[in-house]
Amino acid sequence: MKKAVVLLSGGLDSTTVLAIAQKAGFEINGLTFSYGQRHETEILAAKKVAEVYKINKHIILPIDLRLFGGSSLTSDTPVPKGRSENEMGIGIPSTYVPARNTIFLSYALAWSEVLGVGDIFIGVNALDYSGYPDCRPGFVNAFEKMANLATKLAVEGKVPVTIHAPLINLSKSEIIKKGITLGVDYSLTSTCYDPAKSGEACGGCDACFLRLKGFAENGIKDPGMYRKES
Amino acid sequence: MKKAVVLLSGGLDSTTVLAIAQKAGFEINGLTFSYGQRHETEILAAKKVAEVYKINKHIILPIDLRLFGGSSLTSDTPVPKGRSENEMGIGIPSTYVPARNTIFLSYALAWSEVLGVGDIFIGVNALDYSGYPDCRPGFVNAFEKMANLATKLAVEGKVPVTIHAPLINLSKSEIIKKGITLGVDYSLTSTCYDPAKSGEACGGCDACFLRLKGFAENGIKDPGMYRKES
Repeated sequence: MKKAVVLLSGGLDSTTVLAIAQKAGFEINGLTFSYGQRHETEILAAKKVAEVYKINKHIILPIDLRLFGGSSLTSDTPVPKGRSENEMGIGIPSTYVPARNTIFLSYALAWSEVLGVGDIFIGVNALDYSGYPDCRPGFVNAFEKMANLATKLAVEGKVPVTIHAPLINLSKSEIIKKGITLGVDYSLTSTCYDPAKSGEACGGCDACFLRLKGFAENGIKDPGMYRKES
Repeated sequence: MKKAVVLLSGGLDSTTVLAIAQKAGFEINGLTFSYGQRHETEILAAKKVAEVYKINKHIILPIDLRLFGGSSLTSDTPVPKGRSENEMGIGIPSTYVPARNTIFLSYALAWSEVLGVGDIFIGVNALDYSGYPDCRPGFVNAFEKMANLATKLAVEGKVPVTIHAPLINLSKSEIIKKGITLGVDYSLTSTCYDPAKSGEACGGCDACFLRLKGFAENGIKDPGMYRKES
């Protein structure tokens, strides 16, 4: 059975990617980061997903991005709420974490080399998050090229590195449609940038907005839990 | 004053790079990793170097590469000793840490973006460590290309990322010669893969061998401390 490293945040996108990779016959090694997010809801969701999918191994890696600061996800800057889709389209939001996907993929690269494989899955998506440069195809391709020059296994062992980004050109609505056909239980997942301690989503941040819209476009009620006021 | 992020291990190479960057007029922000090395000697050396050079800021970032394993520097596999230069030239040694420089540069990229700059210095060297793929020019160039697609600052702010690797084509002997002309005090630095708890170098590992040879070729006594038996 081919092994793969899957970046698993516990969100809608990465859980769909896990289902895609498993369906494609990969043994899943899930990598989740505890990177000074405001909350642990995402990590609890990732643990539940890992359990339900009976993945081979799940590593939760603490990394400290707070030392650098620079993002509302890793500092005390407020998360923007109630923005329209047009507002989201202007510039890169404060929820952008500097070089986050570069760091995540670098760790995935390290683990995949130790496992003796080169398949890495990431749930980046260029359409809904076009504001994040490290979610675009150009970035993913450039990372893959670099990775093939970076490791002993790629250079000497002739095991090429492939960065699989199966959602990169899908809309949120299409991602949910794909997940539903694969039987993904989205009640396990956590998408919100600013959930309550109980894990309930805020319903007002960009991530909640896009998620709710994606379910609505599929004519399905989002099975996630939202705070009553939202 | 232009700011730069300098990867500072506390070794001979990165200390020379720091001196080069400072001489070139950069304000130095030093980044050191505590990555499950066997010892803290390197980190103590990095602290001393940061102090002597009065750098702007020094971050020591704990990152856990032990979770993945795969290297004699981050596990209990013995460090090879007493190898000849020919033996070192064959294949990639067990001291290779999977994707290490990719991870280090990714963090440097994150910090440089938060600082609002794109200049990153790394002391990689292709000649003496030709066995490490992530010390070669092709890797450094590919990382730079990827980095210029990865960050908000590079993509939107038009602040290009430059990975400076001023030692990449120098021999150890040439690096030492350069450092001496810049007044580097190499007694501050730690190079050994397997130092004693006191910080004394073993004198027998590949890194010690290359360092001692580099000083000998310059007709200078290595000011580093070695264990008596070596």
